[in-house]
Amino acid sequence: MISPHSIAYLGPPGTFSETAALCYLDLLGDGDLSRLHPYPTIAQALRALARREVGQAIVPVENSIEGSVTTTLDTVWSLEGLQVEQALVLPIVNTLLSRVEALSQIRWVYSHPQPLAQCQQWLEQNLPQAQLIPTRSTIEALTYLDQPATAAIAAERAAELYSLPILARELNDHPGNRTRFWVLSLQRSSETLQGRTHTSLAFSFSANAPGTLAQALSVFASRQINLSRIESRPTKRSLGEYLFFIDLEADAAEPRVCSALAELKPQVETLKVFGSYSVSTLESDLQDNPV
Amino acid sequence: MISPHSIAYLGPPGTFSETAALCYLDLLGDGDLSRLHPYPTIAQALRALARREVGQAIVPVENSIEGSVTTTLDTVWSLEGLQVEQALVLPIVNTLLSRVEALSQIRWVYSHPQPLAQCQQWLEQNLPQAQLIPTRSTIEALTYLDQPATAAIAAERAAELYSLPILARELNDHPGNRTRFWVLSLQRSSETLQGRTHTSLAFSFSANAPGTLAQALSVFASRQINLSRIESRPTKRSLGEYLFFIDLEADAAEPRVCSALAELKPQVETLKVFGSYSVSTLESDLQDNPV
Repeated sequence: MISPHSIAYLGPPGTFSETAALCYLDLLGDGDLSRLHPYPTIAQALRALARREVGQAIVPVENSIEGSVTTTLDTVWSLEGLQVEQALVLPIVNTLLSRVEALSQIRWVYSHPQPLAQCQQWLEQNLPQAQLIPTRSTIEALTYLDQPATAAIAAERAAELYSLPILARELNDHPGNRTRFWVLSLQRSSETLQGRTHTSLAFSFSANAPGTLAQALSVFASRQINLSRIESRPTKRSLGEYLFFIDLEADAAEPRVCSALAELKPQVETLKVFGSYSVSTLESDLQDNPV
Repeated sequence: MISPHSIAYLGPPGTFSETAALCYLDLLGDGDLSRLHPYPTIAQALRALARREVGQAIVPVENSIEGSVTTTLDTVWSLEGLQVEQALVLPIVNTLLSRVEALSQIRWVYSHPQPLAQCQQWLEQNLPQAQLIPTRSTIEALTYLDQPATAAIAAERAAELYSLPILARELNDHPGNRTRFWVLSLQRSSETLQGRTHTSLAFSFSANAPGTLAQALSVFASRQINLSRIESRPTKRSLGEYLFFIDLEADAAEPRVCSALAELKPQVETLKVFGSYSVSTLESDLQDNPV
């Protein structure tokens, strides 16, 4: 039995999600690494939280290159009572691990689809002969490195954890590659908490009439509340029906946000507010200074 | 050398994209299947069009369960001059192919990540013991069926094309599973064409000020132009900067759309209009009546 003190994350150890979880403990000044529990998928980590098997879950929600992590949005919407306690922004540096001696010897590159997409141009320029093979995590990709002519893209930390040689560093096509994670729990965070700068919410409409979305967004615009993000997801009922996920740059406890949400509610079918929280930017040099 | 008469699609033969391409030829009353040319990725199919190696490309743009095909949106935005000629909506029916005799013998299920996600609940209920392994296409998944204890999820048409046994039909978790495809070309379609019911466009903002998106959407709402879809994609410059892809239920040649776009243009950084087109709903019974 896992305790309510536990934190679920997308494992196994060595994933970027684990790095985010380690940074989060560091932020809390908590050195108890036994709190961290890896789960094989994002949905399973979030369901473990909904079933109260763990007290918190840390999951990726958005990458600056590849966009939303749609499993996270869909699962958070479908489960009841999940609240965002904090957002963590982690710089992502992709590294090429391989037992071969030169790039020209590589015929297969394994990694999770996100790093493969983030390094697409680097791969086309430096490994045009290689076939790209998606895996379920960057760590699963490492299991292929005992086969000849293979390489994997993962975090530098994974090379250290699993004692694997690094063949190339900083493969990212775009500098400024970052992933935002959410720390979720089942507790509605205290309304008196200071420093909550963002609020996440989602809503669906019962009918698709002209201007429904524009009208919904205007409740925020008219109160000078900035939207830092909007994302549509299919309702899965019918092609062309959507949910909208929105991040506001404001605290839900502010009077202008309360009044905006009160105006929004009768316009939508379902409104879910996932809470207000602060955003912490992390350093990813855990690779060099493992906790 | 491939001719300007050719049509690029996400291959190999047997993919849902090929079914969409076959239906499109059928719609045109054209029986010349030699026009169809498979490409290994969506990006490669679209780049072949941009380089004028083919005259058209047919690519998936959105699924009713899994949402946008982000590679398609990102590539169409990044290339110059691509125009949507027509949208095709194809019902998606997933089928389990395997050489084993009973579901209980299956230990590995291979497929493209989209069908794996579309059949998640069916797989959890019927194959809880199986490991799910993503492949680059539903057809690549079939190459694993000679190994023991394996199954693949693909179209029923693939079973016929490659002479493989069907173990289970209609695996979809949600009825009404549909994928929308775009037929793209480099020609701006004639403004006098009848029956163009939809317009697709995308824009970016130079700064993220309160209400910028709400104001942009209001140019359509104030003219009673319905938005059938909105999708945000990262600009890849910085976390929190987005492009917005919008589908309007109107023809860009209508005066109200012209005036809305004229009002929108000074508000945005870059505006790209991908054309106006009609939407055709296809029958997916090609499996039974191969063209």
